[in-house]
Amino acid sequence: MPRVLVIFGPNLNLVGEREPEVYGTATYEDIIEHLRAAAAAEGVEVDVFQSNHEGDLIDRVQGARHSHDAVVLNPGGFTHTSVALRDAVAAVPIPVIEAHLSNPFRREPFRRRSLLASVCVGTIQGFGADSMVLALRAAAGLLRRRRES
Amino acid sequence: MPRVLVIFGPNLNLVGEREPEVYGTATYEDIIEHLRAAAAAEGVEVDVFQSNHEGDLIDRVQGARHSHDAVVLNPGGFTHTSVALRDAVAAVPIPVIEAHLSNPFRREPFRRRSLLASVCVGTIQGFGADSMVLALRAAAGLLRRRRES
Amino acid sequence: MPRVLVIFGPNLNLVGEREPEVYGTATYEDIIEHLRAAAAAEGVEVDVFQSNHEGDLIDRVQGARHSHDAVVLNPGGFTHTSVALRDAVAAVPIPVIEAHLSNPFRREPFRRRSLLASVCVGTIQGFGADSMVLALRAAAGLLRRRRES
Amino acid sequence: MPRVLVIFGPNLNLVGEREPEVYGTATYEDIIEHLRAAAAAEGVEVDVFQSNHEGDLIDRVQGARHSHDAVVLNPGGFTHTSVALRDAVAAVPIPVIEAHLSNPFRREPFRRRSLLASVCVGTIQGFGADSMVLALRAAAGLLRRRRES
Amino acid sequence: MPRVLVIFGPNLNLVGEREPEVYGTATYEDIIEHLRAAAAAEGVEVDVFQSNHEGDLIDRVQGARHSHDAVVLNPGGFTHTSVALRDAVAAVPIPVIEAHLSNPFRREPFRRRSLLASVCVGTIQGFGADSMVLALRAAAGLLRRRRES
Amino acid sequence: MPRVLVIFGPNLNLVGEREPEVYGTATYEDIIEHLRAAAAAEGVEVDVFQSNHEGDLIDRVQGARHSHDAVVLNPGGFTHTSVALRDAVAAVPIPVIEAHLSNPFRREPFRRRSLLASVCVGTIQGFGADSMVLALRAAAGLLRRRRES
Amino acid sequence: MPRVLVIFGPNLNLVGEREPEVYGTATYEDIIEHLRAAAAAEGVEVDVFQSNHEGDLIDRVQGARHSHDAVVLNPGGFTHTSVALRDAVAAVPIPVIEAHLSNPFRREPFRRRSLLASVCVGTIQGFGADSMVLALRAAAGLLRRRRES
Amino acid sequence: MPRVLVIFGPNLNLVGEREPEVYGTATYEDIIEHLRAAAAAEGVEVDVFQSNHEGDLIDRVQGARHSHDAVVLNPGGFTHTSVALRDAVAAVPIPVIEAHLSNPFRREPFRRRSLLASVCVGTIQGFGADSMVLALRAAAGLLRRRRES
Amino acid sequence: MPRVLVIFGPNLNLVGEREPEVYGTATYEDIIEHLRAAAAAEGVEVDVFQSNHEGDLIDRVQGARHSHDAVVLNPGGFTHTSVALRDAVAAVPIPVIEAHLSNPFRREPFRRRSLLASVCVGTIQGFGADSMVLALRAAAGLLRRRRES
Amino acid sequence: MPRVLVIFGPNLNLVGEREPEVYGTATYEDIIEHLRAAAAAEGVEVDVFQSNHEGDLIDRVQGARHSHDAVVLNPGGFTHTSVALRDAVAAVPIPVIEAHLSNPFRREPFRRRSLLASVCVGTIQGFGADSMVLALRAAAGLLRRRRES
Amino acid sequence: MPRVLVIFGPNLNLVGEREPEVYGTATYEDIIEHLRAAAAAEGVEVDVFQSNHEGDLIDRVQGARHSHDAVVLNPGGFTHTSVALRDAVAAVPIPVIEAHLSNPFRREPFRRRSLLASVCVGTIQGFGADSMVLALRAAAGLLRRRRES
Amino acid sequence: MPRVLVIFGPNLNLVGEREPEVYGTATYEDIIEHLRAAAAAEGVEVDVFQSNHEGDLIDRVQGARHSHDAVVLNPGGFTHTSVALRDAVAAVPIPVIEAHLSNPFRREPFRRRSLLASVCVGTIQGFGADSMVLALRAAAGLLRRRRES
Repeated sequence: MPRVLVIFGPNLNLVGEREPEVYGTATYEDIIEHLRAAAAAEGVEVDVFQSNHEGDLIDRVQGARHSHDAVVLNPGGFTHTSVALRDAVAAVPIPVIEAHLSNPFRREPFRRRSLLASVCVGTIQGFGADSMVLALRAAAGLLRRRRES
Repeated sequence: MPRVLVIFGPNLNLVGEREPEVYGTATYEDIIEHLRAAAAAEGVEVDVFQSNHEGDLIDRVQGARHSHDAVVLNPGGFTHTSVALRDAVAAVPIPVIEAHLSNPFRREPFRRRSLLASVCVGTIQGFGADSMVLALRAAAGLLRRRRES
Repeated sequence: MPRVLVIFGPNLNLVGEREPEVYGTATYEDIIEHLRAAAAAEGVEVDVFQSNHEGDLIDRVQGARHSHDAVVLNPGGFTHTSVALRDAVAAVPIPVIEAHLSNPFRREPFRRRSLLASVCVGTIQGFGADSMVLALRAAAGLLRRRRES
Repeated sequence: MPRVLVIFGPNLNLVGEREPEVYGTATYEDIIEHLRAAAAAEGVEVDVFQSNHEGDLIDRVQGARHSHDAVVLNPGGFTHTSVALRDAVAAVPIPVIEAHLSNPFRREPFRRRSLLASVCVGTIQGFGADSMVLALRAAAGLLRRRRES
Repeated sequence: MPRVLVIFGPNLNLVGEREPEVYGTATYEDIIEHLRAAAAAEGVEVDVFQSNHEGDLIDRVQGARHSHDAVVLNPGGFTHTSVALRDAVAAVPIPVIEAHLSNPFRREPFRRRSLLASVCVGTIQGFGADSMVLALRAAAGLLRRRRES
Repeated sequence: MPRVLVIFGPNLNLVGEREPEVYGTATYEDIIEHLRAAAAAEGVEVDVFQSNHEGDLIDRVQGARHSHDAVVLNPGGFTHTSVALRDAVAAVPIPVIEAHLSNPFRREPFRRRSLLASVCVGTIQGFGADSMVLALRAAAGLLRRRRES
Repeated sequence: MPRVLVIFGPNLNLVGEREPEVYGTATYEDIIEHLRAAAAAEGVEVDVFQSNHEGDLIDRVQGARHSHDAVVLNPGGFTHTSVALRDAVAAVPIPVIEAHLSNPFRREPFRRRSLLASVCVGTIQGFGADSMVLALRAAAGLLRRRRES
Repeated sequence: MPRVLVIFGPNLNLVGEREPEVYGTATYEDIIEHLRAAAAAEGVEVDVFQSNHEGDLIDRVQGARHSHDAVVLNPGGFTHTSVALRDAVAAVPIPVIEAHLSNPFRREPFRRRSLLASVCVGTIQGFGADSMVLALRAAAGLLRRRRES
Repeated sequence: MPRVLVIFGPNLNLVGEREPEVYGTATYEDIIEHLRAAAAAEGVEVDVFQSNHEGDLIDRVQGARHSHDAVVLNPGGFTHTSVALRDAVAAVPIPVIEAHLSNPFRREPFRRRSLLASVCVGTIQGFGADSMVLALRAAAGLLRRRRES
Repeated sequence: MPRVLVIFGPNLNLVGEREPEVYGTATYEDIIEHLRAAAAAEGVEVDVFQSNHEGDLIDRVQGARHSHDAVVLNPGGFTHTSVALRDAVAAVPIPVIEAHLSNPFRREPFRRRSLLASVCVGTIQGFGADSMVLALRAAAGLLRRRRES
Repeated sequence: MPRVLVIFGPNLNLVGEREPEVYGTATYEDIIEHLRAAAAAEGVEVDVFQSNHEGDLIDRVQGARHSHDAVVLNPGGFTHTSVALRDAVAAVPIPVIEAHLSNPFRREPFRRRSLLASVCVGTIQGFGADSMVLALRAAAGLLRRRRES
Repeated sequence: MPRVLVIFGPNLNLVGEREPEVYGTATYEDIIEHLRAAAAAEGVEVDVFQSNHEGDLIDRVQGARHSHDAVVLNPGGFTHTSVALRDAVAAVPIPVIEAHLSNPFRREPFRRRSLLASVCVGTIQGFGADSMVLALRAAAGLLRRRRES
């Protein structure tokens, strides 16, 4: 069974508690539950990881090349500032999909620059908790097609 | 049954024939077929429209406020240049979702500016034909939640 | 009797219905009525044209050099993006006056660049429906003075 | 009877003498006469003030909130540089209308930035002496509608 | 016999009538006559098309991949603003040559950005009606060398 | 007893009356009273000066080098535009402290550039009337330390 | 008794040892002592934390919403680069005050951009060790006023 | 005998006292004496005026068109910010020469933009008090040549 | 018989040997031969000059005003950097035509700025060796029309 | 014997495995071996440290002022984003040398800004594994010269 | 007797012949004569050098440190592009004065950047041939004051 | 024995005499001596060339493709301005290494742009005379590895 690692960056552990008008009322635990349900429906295994530490996220992205088949990455605030995280994504041979709960283009100007977008397969943003679920589905679809071809 | 209008902008009628390394090998007709299948699975009606004329696209977005419940819009090259199309999207009270076959951030710099993103609910890009299908699903999910609340 | 052509660009047919806090509550039909009343008071004939199609607007501006004595132009979203419409204005020998319902300087930054302003006689903006009426009056005054000199 | 204060900024006392190809041949005294005639026709009282001193203009704008019902302001060169004059306009509860004899968009690039435009009700520019008269009429119209509503 | 399509963008139908100090005194009809003479001399068939509508130009560029062997394109004001027209040029497998009557570098700054230049084979500009004729010759030369190799 | 001059720039005489959501409800007179109480507590003499005239502010900053030991300066709108006021601050050998009632970084972009900040000892901003009192205290502390060392 | 957390970012543990002409001669230990004395005088409890790790600072800011009533934050070099730390500050409901020993505006240009300033209550900078003490006092004042109102 | 007006802008009255490493040790009075000596040698009358008030400088430049034959203008900090002073220079028909004691290009970046330079005959900068004397000579030479031609 | 000088700038002597995918396989000698053949066909005399030295190119452009009737100039890398060469072109009264083997818009961004284009009659680029031949023809055409008028 | 600390930043542990066309085929272990051989030849002790955590790198740079005589630093992706790492380098009194395996100027534009370069003694980049060895030699040379002088 | 070297850059040998509305009607030979007369009056020896070759100008500036006491440099088009000439000026210990016949600020925007100004003692521009003579006088004055002090 | 050409650009002949705080006290002759010693140790032949003329440097880089195996290039001020020199480097098939005595990133902003860096193998800067020696060693290493593979 294909394995997907879902990684959440800084401050996403506070989702649901923090600025609900931006991120919706679903909590971090709710989102994980939705991810598990969708994984079951798509026939993939899912693991979840969250950290506020840039170095931990880099370690995990690097490690995923041995342990998983694809990564769904919500890099939080590091989206706009971390060349190091970008290099980690570029260094692993498995597909990485970028996802955001909110639509960065409706927020402050400094959120318009994504250092990650050009090394990821694609981006899904602006659908609240559904962004994560749709990204997991996109990953499952990708892996399905690879096996078939 | 909720109705969704899927609008394709300029040059998308050539998909499959044109630059397959960028857009994939699925033809325009293949994509429409995938959309119809997904609509059936999600329990929504789907209509499809394509034009190379900016004015036609504006007319259709305006008209959709009377005929449909949501719009999935792939604006093609107008993404980066059309304030008029943006104003049409902002003028209609129904949700509009932006979708792209390719990942604009992996292409020329002038494709990084989206005039549409900040007036749409969200964006899905980079998954080839799957981008359109995932966007249709995102629209169906949105409409489902609205009816329930 | 002098003839003035009033041209409305994309999305202005939705005025009154769309974002009333930006454009006021007068509908497109109300504005036309105000224009007719003012034209009568100023002793000019007025014709009105609206389109969402850039090419139609260019055709009409070009045609006006044979059919009218002046143009009042509310270019909508094309204000900021259309070099082609600008070239049409520059190509006709009759005076063109730029008018906007809202004040673009109180809106998004990309609305601060007007490609039209420097080829028009002048600009009137920020008075809602009155902008159009004041622009018609400015046109009438211009034509009056030309005949007298 | 409603009272309107017309304020002229630096160098406008030289109009008619200075660069007639830019500003027309009407002198400062001619313009004041036109303003008085228009005020009589519109049924408003008009006062006129000119100074080359930024501080004097700010004092007058501030003072107008007790003495007048509206201001027509031709800020001259301060249009592009004075945040202080802008703050004065923002601080008074009466409507202020921006007017320019010439069309700044047809002149040097540094005249394209207006610090005033976004705190004024609207702008009229490019009609020579008529700009001032049209602005007085716009002010009279505004005050009339306020009393009626 | 090889076939070349010459496409003229917006406002070029007014050439000769409009701003002769910029575009020369040859009329649109004169230019077509010169093109026909040169085509005869070079041994190619030539077709000519003009429109003020961006969508029409895109349709024609797309259609040319089935009907012609090369395109000479004078995109007028769309040179600087149309990503959609650029995408159409990039989507067709036949060579496209950019031509301008005037030298854009001697005009307004916004005419210095060409969205078309980098997807065309080459550019010829600044020779009035001769620009079109030299571009037709460049196309004929290209096609001759292709057949020979 | 050390003497501190507190200088208020343009429009600050209207504080409390003008935009209370930005500047708070304390009036200009309230602020002066707070300053006098704080001065007594800190053991310094305080003088207060306000003007809307850039030249008066420059004269006063220049004069302070003979009459006072430190200056607290709230330059209002001149913060962003006056090189001349900046030069005056740089020309006097006594310490000058910049203070703002509001936080300019939460307001318009043109308020982000301070010409004064780099020639002042330090900046205090965002605490309403308390900004002025904290700045007076900072000045008193500076002077105390100078005498002691 | 209200509790305030004072957080020092990277390299501030070297203060006094490092570049004294920029940061003054007070050591990190001296500053903590000054903070404790000021806290006693203001009647607040104070805790101090320092780390060179961005993730640790984010964890602490997040945690402070349960353990303290206000935060004084000297973000060091993260001031200019960390969107993640900014998001953490925006996510907690208690007031955060930004403080810097030196005046960033007198240093390199890249220190002029503060990502933190617009989500903090206010900023105090340029007074050496006194910046921290003044910020603690500002925090104490804020909390006092909140209890009283 | 030709008459030349020498105008000094803000803070130049402090020359010799203020930052001698930038402006030299000659005092304002020394410079005036040098100007009088040079005027005698060149056979021109010289008048001198200094003010820190932008409005006063504008009044004087305007007035000079009736009272003098040329102006030497050291605009101080207004060099970089005053469109109003620039307009005054452009409005008078007599030649104006720009002069600076220091070399602005060896100072802060914001001193590199001169709003005055393009409306003056020429510029002389960087020679301390000699800049003013050389500018007076340049004015005398200009007037001499005009009388002769 | 009219005389045309063809000038090649730095590194063009290596054409054919250097980066053939950019410049084609025709050698420098081949190009000269093509130029001689075309000159014979057009009835003009042609001289050719190449140098890697900016000063030599300037000397030759200056000298051509006495020795030739037109210049075809391929300025190589100086296109983007030499104001001095530009001034030389502007200083001579004969027409100069800019030509490039490759299409600079398909190469690095710093090749998009041409200092020469706005002082030349026109530009031809992107046709390999044919660019030089077409430019020679354009020159011959220009000279023919001048003699006839 | 002098001691040199070689520090590798994020993702450098993957060298040899990751993008060999950019970084070469030497593995991380190979590079360490080369460093040990070169250290023996130069007569210096070498220690090596790698981490993906910015805070760890800062701790180590700080600690090196007590434990080593020089640092060779390959900051990886932090080169372009970390003001905090830069401040650490500026805070230690021992020389730090910047080294990169690849040549950042041949890669993406965001790699052109180095926050580190201006606080390091010098930079060596573009020689693959040899960059690290040459940097160690440069450090050894520096230390040798210091002891001798 | 002090010796001054006057250096003229590219295209200045054509002065008088080229664009007289920009540079005046005095020829290069006239200017040299004026310089000789002024040198005699000031009691200095003068040598003159002109070249269109950047390298020759650098050689001469370098050589002047052994042969002359000051340099007057009119760098022509190299003013805006030559870092190498700037470095030569910075490398010689004798004073260099920048002079221009025309006023660059009244010409194209790319002439506003001077790479030379910040390494020269001062600048004199805009007085035609008199600029050179005034610069020679400024040099003579400088040398006189140095000998006296 | 492999042959390396070391090329020094403008003003480097003055090293040791000129600004020793920037370039160190080693003279040009000292550096050549160090280069010869290092060449002997590395087993390569070395030739040295210096010129202030851009054209000479281009000629030499071109010529080196027949006479040498590698080039070490210190382009001096041409680093930042010469596209022509860059094209010469790109045109030769042998490796070129960029070297600078000083660290350009610690100097003026216009020295941050290197036109050469992206066509060279690598860069070494900031070690004074050692930069040249280390670059020679880097060249020797490159050539050794090429022969071995």
